[in-house]
Amino acid sequence: MKLPTLDDVRDAAVRIAPYASVTPVMRSPALDALAGAELFFKCENLQRGGAFKFRGACNAVWSLDEIEAAHGVVTHSSGNHGNALALAAGTRGIAAHVIVPDGAVRAKLDAIAAAGAVIHRCAATQAAREAKAAEVQAATRAIMVHPYADARVMAGQGTLVLELLRQAEAIDTLITPVGGGGLSAGCSIAAHGLDPSLRMLGAEPKGADDAWQSLHSDHRVTDIVPDTICDGLRAIIGEPNLLALRDHRVDVLTVSDDETIAAMRLLWTHLKLVVEVSSATVLAALLANRAKIAGRRIGVVLTGGNVDLDALPW
Amino acid sequence: MKLPTLDDVRDAAVRIAPYASVTPVMRSPALDALAGAELFFKCENLQRGGAFKFRGACNAVWSLDEIEAAHGVVTHSSGNHGNALALAAGTRGIAAHVIVPDGAVRAKLDAIAAAGAVIHRCAATQAAREAKAAEVQAATRAIMVHPYADARVMAGQGTLVLELLRQAEAIDTLITPVGGGGLSAGCSIAAHGLDPSLRMLGAEPKGADDAWQSLHSDHRVTDIVPDTICDGLRAIIGEPNLLALRDHRVDVLTVSDDETIAAMRLLWTHLKLVVEVSSATVLAALLANRAKIAGRRIGVVLTGGNVDLDALPW
Repeated sequence: MKLPTLDDVRDAAVRIAPYASVTPVMRSPALDALAGAELFFKCENLQRGGAFKFRGACNAVWSLDEIEAAHGVVTHSSGNHGNALALAAGTRGIAAHVIVPDGAVRAKLDAIAAAGAVIHRCAATQAAREAKAAEVQAATRAIMVHPYADARVMAGQGTLVLELLRQAEAIDTLITPVGGGGLSAGCSIAAHGLDPSLRMLGAEPKGADDAWQSLHSDHRVTDIVPDTICDGLRAIIGEPNLLALRDHRVDVLTVSDDETIAAMRLLWTHLKLVVEVSSATVLAALLANRAKIAGRRIGVVLTGGNVDLDALPW
Repeated sequence: MKLPTLDDVRDAAVRIAPYASVTPVMRSPALDALAGAELFFKCENLQRGGAFKFRGACNAVWSLDEIEAAHGVVTHSSGNHGNALALAAGTRGIAAHVIVPDGAVRAKLDAIAAAGAVIHRCAATQAAREAKAAEVQAATRAIMVHPYADARVMAGQGTLVLELLRQAEAIDTLITPVGGGGLSAGCSIAAHGLDPSLRMLGAEPKGADDAWQSLHSDHRVTDIVPDTICDGLRAIIGEPNLLALRDHRVDVLTVSDDETIAAMRLLWTHLKLVVEVSSATVLAALLANRAKIAGRRIGVVLTGGNVDLDALPW
């Protein structure tokens, strides 16, 4: 696939504008003091569906022509992307098929079903997911919308940068979590399209540091077994995503789960926002790298707020 | 004391503008559907100090003349008002004395101390608090700023209504929690000053329903022993506050703690906001009175977000 351009991100912004929220940017003097930098939190936990994922899914759904759209869309994600795709398909009145592996979290399944998706169960292996997806595509001709290795999805995620750079002046650094790399790729493309001097950071759990390892070697590292509490960041970095991260010199910082949980508490306490644990990696990475960020003006993407309130990690 | 007027609220807004936040208004289609009404949540949990209390305290502090101010301010509140007064005094560089009864929550004490207040301990009785306050006033000539039975405080709290009616169009109903009645009085005065047809609702825990009982009798009921999880709403309604609630025909709705806890979960889940339990009484009251509010456009004041994350009530 071809990576999207700034123009693709701009087109995506127009396409999703009727459906997506322009999320607010929040500040905290207490967190600025802790970080020794000025932090501008882009609150994608307040996005429709509770996560930035709606941007990419919505752009993909509305990029389809009439004939494609009539077949519906399909994906394999039991997390925020599955839910986002179901909501996005709903805005166009088309079917969404979501492949859900056994063992997926009940609350997330319920949300996906409530959003109107057709749920297809399969065994919890990559092979079973791909086989089920192929089966659904063959039966329905639904269009696959991959959670991150998809140019339409990347362009959609990048739209948050267009907003952020309007909302906060003179940002010189941007940090996002890194899972499959759709967010980081889309944001890098948008950010450097507007301002090539912007410094791009990524935050990745030490227990799922495939992007960090890949960037520090000459190939994509795919043989890790994720071991992290950050359920949104266990995916292996996509091939096109890794290319984008290399092109844009994204500096990926790794953090321990303990650092992330402590940062999550700080976000809840000082911003009064419910953010999910994967979102807290960015603050954890900043606090562990104060020398690197001293005095900078940093856009900090809070990716989602879908939390099991009965199982908080502290 | 004389109740404040709309002009006093407007003056307060000018006075606090350099220090207080204009808090955002948030929406939730899911909560609208549950309530059968359009809800506009005024997010005072995002106010400085994490609660609306900063408005009233800040107005009181900046209402003092130079000579009064030089003596500092004093109050007896170990909760959000104590913290707010300490922060407000800090904006003017004057001393804040906060009387704290034995047994106050450690985290709140720490916050008050961190805000720069001088803390005075006393026994946990009303008599001991008043004696200690008199002692501090005698020694320092500090000005007492009562948490709610104070015209400057009421006027300050009312400033949130000026913002809300600019931020959300055609609001026809407003609901606030009722504790001592400073918020409800100030908001009623501001709201009816701007739009006499606005319907004013209050939400009060059944276990601390002194305002409800007082409004349904010919005198102020002061002999109840509060029994509610809503630590911000255990105060007995003030004398001038009760007058204001009668004048403005505030319809106080009572809710059980179970209803409030369920509403708190809904707010966290759908708004992705950390709000304290007292704040959730308003949503609980709306959900328990759907017939009364059907189709209305309701301003809903979320009063605070200072929560002990290790002791959530579910």
